[in-house]
Amino acid sequence: MIGFRNDYGQGAHPDVLRALCDTNLVRSKGYGIDAFCDDAADKIRLEFACPNAAVHFLPGGTLTNLTALSAFLRPYEAVITAHSGHIAVHEAGAIEATGHRLLSLPSSDGKITPTDIAVACAEHGDEHMVIPRLVYISNSTELGTVYSLAELTALRACCDAHHLYLYMDGARLAHALTSEANDVSPAQIASLTDAFYIGGTKNGAMFGEALFITNAALMPHFRHAMKQRGAMLAKSHLMGVQFATLFTDKLYFRLGSYANALAARLQSELLSMGIEFQTLSPTNLIFPILDNAVVAALAKNYDFEIWCPMGNRTMIRLVTGWASTDAEVDKLVADLRRML
Amino acid sequence: MIGFRNDYGQGAHPDVLRALCDTNLVRSKGYGIDAFCDDAADKIRLEFACPNAAVHFLPGGTLTNLTALSAFLRPYEAVITAHSGHIAVHEAGAIEATGHRLLSLPSSDGKITPTDIAVACAEHGDEHMVIPRLVYISNSTELGTVYSLAELTALRACCDAHHLYLYMDGARLAHALTSEANDVSPAQIASLTDAFYIGGTKNGAMFGEALFITNAALMPHFRHAMKQRGAMLAKSHLMGVQFATLFTDKLYFRLGSYANALAARLQSELLSMGIEFQTLSPTNLIFPILDNAVVAALAKNYDFEIWCPMGNRTMIRLVTGWASTDAEVDKLVADLRRML
Amino acid sequence: MIGFRNDYGQGAHPDVLRALCDTNLVRSKGYGIDAFCDDAADKIRLEFACPNAAVHFLPGGTLTNLTALSAFLRPYEAVITAHSGHIAVHEAGAIEATGHRLLSLPSSDGKITPTDIAVACAEHGDEHMVIPRLVYISNSTELGTVYSLAELTALRACCDAHHLYLYMDGARLAHALTSEANDVSPAQIASLTDAFYIGGTKNGAMFGEALFITNAALMPHFRHAMKQRGAMLAKSHLMGVQFATLFTDKLYFRLGSYANALAARLQSELLSMGIEFQTLSPTNLIFPILDNAVVAALAKNYDFEIWCPMGNRTMIRLVTGWASTDAEVDKLVADLRRML
Amino acid sequence: MIGFRNDYGQGAHPDVLRALCDTNLVRSKGYGIDAFCDDAADKIRLEFACPNAAVHFLPGGTLTNLTALSAFLRPYEAVITAHSGHIAVHEAGAIEATGHRLLSLPSSDGKITPTDIAVACAEHGDEHMVIPRLVYISNSTELGTVYSLAELTALRACCDAHHLYLYMDGARLAHALTSEANDVSPAQIASLTDAFYIGGTKNGAMFGEALFITNAALMPHFRHAMKQRGAMLAKSHLMGVQFATLFTDKLYFRLGSYANALAARLQSELLSMGIEFQTLSPTNLIFPILDNAVVAALAKNYDFEIWCPMGNRTMIRLVTGWASTDAEVDKLVADLRRML
Repeated sequence: MIGFRNDYGQGAHPDVLRALCDTNLVRSKGYGIDAFCDDAADKIRLEFACPNAAVHFLPGGTLTNLTALSAFLRPYEAVITAHSGHIAVHEAGAIEATGHRLLSLPSSDGKITPTDIAVACAEHGDEHMVIPRLVYISNSTELGTVYSLAELTALRACCDAHHLYLYMDGARLAHALTSEANDVSPAQIASLTDAFYIGGTKNGAMFGEALFITNAALMPHFRHAMKQRGAMLAKSHLMGVQFATLFTDKLYFRLGSYANALAARLQSELLSMGIEFQTLSPTNLIFPILDNAVVAALAKNYDFEIWCPMGNRTMIRLVTGWASTDAEVDKLVADLRRML
Repeated sequence: MIGFRNDYGQGAHPDVLRALCDTNLVRSKGYGIDAFCDDAADKIRLEFACPNAAVHFLPGGTLTNLTALSAFLRPYEAVITAHSGHIAVHEAGAIEATGHRLLSLPSSDGKITPTDIAVACAEHGDEHMVIPRLVYISNSTELGTVYSLAELTALRACCDAHHLYLYMDGARLAHALTSEANDVSPAQIASLTDAFYIGGTKNGAMFGEALFITNAALMPHFRHAMKQRGAMLAKSHLMGVQFATLFTDKLYFRLGSYANALAARLQSELLSMGIEFQTLSPTNLIFPILDNAVVAALAKNYDFEIWCPMGNRTMIRLVTGWASTDAEVDKLVADLRRML
Repeated sequence: MIGFRNDYGQGAHPDVLRALCDTNLVRSKGYGIDAFCDDAADKIRLEFACPNAAVHFLPGGTLTNLTALSAFLRPYEAVITAHSGHIAVHEAGAIEATGHRLLSLPSSDGKITPTDIAVACAEHGDEHMVIPRLVYISNSTELGTVYSLAELTALRACCDAHHLYLYMDGARLAHALTSEANDVSPAQIASLTDAFYIGGTKNGAMFGEALFITNAALMPHFRHAMKQRGAMLAKSHLMGVQFATLFTDKLYFRLGSYANALAARLQSELLSMGIEFQTLSPTNLIFPILDNAVVAALAKNYDFEIWCPMGNRTMIRLVTGWASTDAEVDKLVADLRRML
Repeated sequence: MIGFRNDYGQGAHPDVLRALCDTNLVRSKGYGIDAFCDDAADKIRLEFACPNAAVHFLPGGTLTNLTALSAFLRPYEAVITAHSGHIAVHEAGAIEATGHRLLSLPSSDGKITPTDIAVACAEHGDEHMVIPRLVYISNSTELGTVYSLAELTALRACCDAHHLYLYMDGARLAHALTSEANDVSPAQIASLTDAFYIGGTKNGAMFGEALFITNAALMPHFRHAMKQRGAMLAKSHLMGVQFATLFTDKLYFRLGSYANALAARLQSELLSMGIEFQTLSPTNLIFPILDNAVVAALAKNYDFEIWCPMGNRTMIRLVTGWASTDAEVDKLVADLRRML
């Protein structure tokens, strides 16, 4: 089986693994109070040009989202998200389990707009309804798209106008920021959001995400919130080791760029064969539409996700990652050419 | 600094680390549906002689406790625990955050008794009060003590009589089961409890715990509960790799036994110097009482936890782990002899 | 100001008030364990032909919904509702505050269909998503419509097929069951749902709703759930007094019928003037569409709710209740005729 | 059966009932936005000499406590209470169900002290533990005792020193403030606490409590919190009617004083017969200790609560209320004299 199912199916990038091995017997106090975490946090703050940000390391994306959002909001405050937002679909009600309503907005490309947000706010006007208080966006989105600087700037203005926090799920932030479609700098990510997380799981870490909080009002007692949700690992220093490596010599971005390039080549080859796409993606997730017979044939040797049945055709999701290879892409292209 | 602060301050046991390196590029589907997790679960079921148990891998102890307890209980059901129970003190209200009251019982040695449980149940008799429904015990306890077979058997009978689940926090289960004071087999742990977890974090894993559910009524939909609480890591297969290693050739128990032996030697040497202990511990946590001046002197070269100030003396906690060495124990003994 | 804003703006129906006065000094043990509540529950069970139902009295509708749903569901289980469902709009996130996701379905008339439910279930197939477990319907709906016997029977079959509970919010059950459009008997309501509540607040009680649970699996420990959510009033016996009165000589249904008749007459008069309605309502809520100038003129002497701005016209909501009068309807009709 | 079981077993004081009857057909907009509530709130603010306080009406005590505390606290913040506090025993885990831990302190008389609070705060020093943030006291307490001005002033200072809110459960505030043991004015209650509630249920209202918030930081969005917890009744205006009556001509305090006087006479008569009390109570709850045979004999004609079995004696609770009579007290005294 050749894997195009996900970007988290393997262990750690060799550099990250080496760092874990090299530091394996160094003792830490535990719970993220250690030199490795300090070093990683400093490197991240430098990269995002935000020296006063709070940086925390948590072991997974869902846990990061639920810990952050439940810490930031009062009970009657709600989260605005796209229908396709990870928290709105694939986190098994994690945010609601902490007591908060999601207000989900339709979106064809995984992104939400100030106009839709303004409508949602206008519809929530009295105390019989929740108060929209935080906008959740993913970058890159669940459909592989990325927010432009103009879009993010407009979202920020909208959030300011409606007294909303802007939170970015950066499970694939590396892929967003190294996309050919991207025109946003890391520093702009930090200055335009109140908090975001930098995904490690899907970009070369063995485990872990780095939550980056820029809004000082959201910082107090966040470690209490982490502990309460089970998000503060005893061995947090291992995430420090990993993120310090990822943010040395821009490894984090190089890995994202590498995965994007493979996906771009694959998408381009498929297009050249006449394969259709509902939307083209500038990152490491691509969504070709194939005849069902082709999908079935492909599934014998390739592992991938069925995204959406469409009658006698099927949209599938192909994912490349830091561990994907040129040879895998070549073989898939060759096999598809033969099948069509 | 020589470390006696904890048993989770370093990375992974070399065998575990090697397994992670060796399998680093093997692809998995993610979320714990993979051959590594299957293999590890099989090995664990075999060790605990319970072929029908459900085994799940979660990244940390607090997360395991809160996910399990909130999945097992109805909203108005409460948890009985010792005052010193980890959930009652050091998890920042994690269980209450999922909506459940803790009923905590006094305990001088970290253990709770059927008598105290029966009293708690008798006091909760009508619908103005919560319903006690689950007994939480730690083995070994936060004070290093272990439950005997007679004690566990009596607790089981008490739980049956009062319609209570028995849940064991096994963050240090390896140390309990390999203690000289232990007379309980792994199979008996499984048969006397409804669920327990096998701690990896404090006994040689890089990260992760294995939750073991023996009561079939508690099994349905547990993966939904895990996902909702953020406890189902995308890279769960890495915990499969680790636990398969720990449960090969009884590595898990050898590591616990090793840590216990170091602590036993240390405790015995300290006793021989006339140092007092409030309770003697048969596992890897020991609690000597020292003059404050000695504590201060010790703190210059050693890292450990202040457990309890006692006027001009202080009870400290010394912890040994799989990564502690004979040389460290020897040096501490020598330094203490010189100071006294 | 003449009131067409709501059906809960006044005190209690005179018969109910008289019963409260007559029994004012009778002592009860409190918390709903008393002869008044027993009597009322018996009368209700008789009316709904379900001798084994559990009947509980709670002080308000939102509190009833949140107490029931949170008691019935496991944490990862979700509620299916219409977009317009009261819990989905006007309860300030009350259900989510107890930890449960709502899956809301579009609906033009306030009702949901088995087809839409089946789609929602089909979309929730793995442990990354919540499990749909309860269907919430209102009868009459927030738009004044009622479910037919055929519709309810189909919903029941759908719920059975998909392992779903069927819960009916009966804030205006009296109006539904006495509507000219209704073909469902009280006994059928009981046999087709797992639980429903009989609204008192909007139909002549001073305060209170009666929750009726027919599914035995949902009955255990419900009083614990009530107490925990603050839904078990010390003076619950007063709700017993009221509901015993409402279910004597069918007062409950006579009041609903009375309000419906006033609304029907009003709707018919407005139609005869050429006033448009998006949907005609067979119960006590009607939704005429008027020119904005007419709405503004009307608002000087009448109190009502703006339902939906529609450019230079506005949909308003007019509500009649047990305390509305023929004279009020006559005057509104006359005034409108003059304005048009 | 002559009732000494509780002070909430009957309907409303005749003056309150009359006001409800007199205003029965006056229309209100609902949800507490009406002239009755405004009037009642003004009268209450005047009585407690705090013109800027926020006043809200909620239908019951548990609901008031859980709504207020969950609105005031962040998820990881905890509540300090006496072991005997109503929220710690008799509310079925209502506060924990909103996600917050209770830290309960031993108390022989139902009151807690600055010393004990300071110890609890000192024990909660890092992010592995909850943050104590609110002190819950009852006045009068569950044991009938009252806080003196010196005690409340010391509590306030302690709360200020430890960054704690002070919240008073005033289910029986009338009885506290009219006790012979009381030296606190209503204005001092308001100035020494951050919020408290004025119990109606146990002192002559048909239903309802008035929450009084003096700390401006706790006021925003409180109506959202009420709606979300089901604590904002559609017919809230009826609580306005009742509280306006209770706070006219000091009826509220006259009723408390009346109940206290009956209890004082009863306690004094019992003492004169040689009956023992563990603590004497200056309010309307008294706790005599009687031989079991006497208790059994008494139970044939009197309704009361068994408070605490004490071997061959039993402590019972006798409660007087606004509806208790001199004749009832006389008869009990006479019957007890005969039995002893």
